[in-house]
Amino acid sequence: MKTIETCVSPDLLELHELTNKTVIVVDIFRASSTIVTALSNGVNTILPVKDLDQCKAYKEKGWLIAGERNGKQAEGFDLGNSPLAYLNLQFAEENVAMTTTNGTRAISLARKQAAEVLIGSFLNLHATANYLQNSTNDVLVLCAGWKGKFNIEDSLYAGALSLALNWKHDCDATFAMESLYRQVGTNLSDFLQKASHAKRLQNHDLEKDINFCLGIDQYNSVVYLSDEGLKLKH
Amino acid sequence: MKTIETCVSPDLLELHELTNKTVIVVDIFRASSTIVTALSNGVNTILPVKDLDQCKAYKEKGWLIAGERNGKQAEGFDLGNSPLAYLNLQFAEENVAMTTTNGTRAISLARKQAAEVLIGSFLNLHATANYLQNSTNDVLVLCAGWKGKFNIEDSLYAGALSLALNWKHDCDATFAMESLYRQVGTNLSDFLQKASHAKRLQNHDLEKDINFCLGIDQYNSVVYLSDEGLKLKH
Repeated sequence: MKTIETCVSPDLLELHELTNKTVIVVDIFRASSTIVTALSNGVNTILPVKDLDQCKAYKEKGWLIAGERNGKQAEGFDLGNSPLAYLNLQFAEENVAMTTTNGTRAISLARKQAAEVLIGSFLNLHATANYLQNSTNDVLVLCAGWKGKFNIEDSLYAGALSLALNWKHDCDATFAMESLYRQVGTNLSDFLQKASHAKRLQNHDLEKDINFCLGIDQYNSVVYLSDEGLKLKH
Repeated sequence: MKTIETCVSPDLLELHELTNKTVIVVDIFRASSTIVTALSNGVNTILPVKDLDQCKAYKEKGWLIAGERNGKQAEGFDLGNSPLAYLNLQFAEENVAMTTTNGTRAISLARKQAAEVLIGSFLNLHATANYLQNSTNDVLVLCAGWKGKFNIEDSLYAGALSLALNWKHDCDATFAMESLYRQVGTNLSDFLQKASHAKRLQNHDLEKDINFCLGIDQYNSVVYLSDEGLKLKH
């Protein structure tokens, strides 16, 4: 019998056992949504990189570089953290090195011990759920959060995924977020407009990004972390 | 304009600024409910103590000693962690040294920086809210959690307190828990029966304790941490 648990912040990850588990890293606004969109629009590989300088170095190798800090595109980078930039196969076949405030840190923490790391977003919710149904691994949803703090949209994704899987579990965070998602899932956008991280992005005129990131099942893609970076499962 | 935020685990407390804030430590099952009940039933002082041996040493000073680990009364202690033990003024005028799995750790973390530390429970929800309305401090609710992990009953208390205060805030955890409490607050006991920590306590035949801890506004008491330990505000 497989089970699911939710870690509401990367700062709490060490309390969880990751061995033999599939970890779903989720950073709804916007890293994981952007990664799923980019790869679903033909990008070849996305390499998550921890810091800005390390990321910039990939420019010389012919890679695109995407950098975000505190919700804004970092100076000297080709791309920020908007999923919209990748639509219409705009960067098909390209490789992208990416660094973001919260998402890339969560990925690097997860990869150390987990059997497998996937990237989750509302955009590929059921594609990911279907993949997990056919795997033998237990699942841990790792919410990227906001600078270590609980973040409502990432946690709500955990609730949505758990409802889609419908597995037994014994995790309070998952249980709380299932209940909340049942209540607000059909009205995600209105609900999240009052949440703090969404408000921060609204201040940067990113409403279009926010609405896009909340589109459920736009892509039938599963994104995983390979030795070369993030890729689509085929 | 005063504000409220919620820290869902003691392991995340260092992400929060505590200076000039009133921290409400909450460990619904059962330390904070037990502390509020004991002091409301005439206990003079409760000293939160970190470890079992340190706590036992208070026996020689004529104090009662209360010790709990993993939901059970620790060996050699007068009392465990049940609020029911203190009813009917049974230990009026006594001093109690207390150590619990999660609650006492949260108190010791909070006291280092906060302007004031209170103990919150559903049993004195509105008494605490009224006190906070008349204070000038911002508020941080510190959920004791379960061994560092998110815990649904402590987090729901944060939602309940925030709804009672009705202050503006910018905290995702508070926002999520307000929404969840609005949904399940009238049916707390049924809802929490499915949650993991409540289930753990049910395994120990503690249903009576659980139901008691969910009784809203049983006491018109405010509990604070003084230099001598936890006491009622008069």
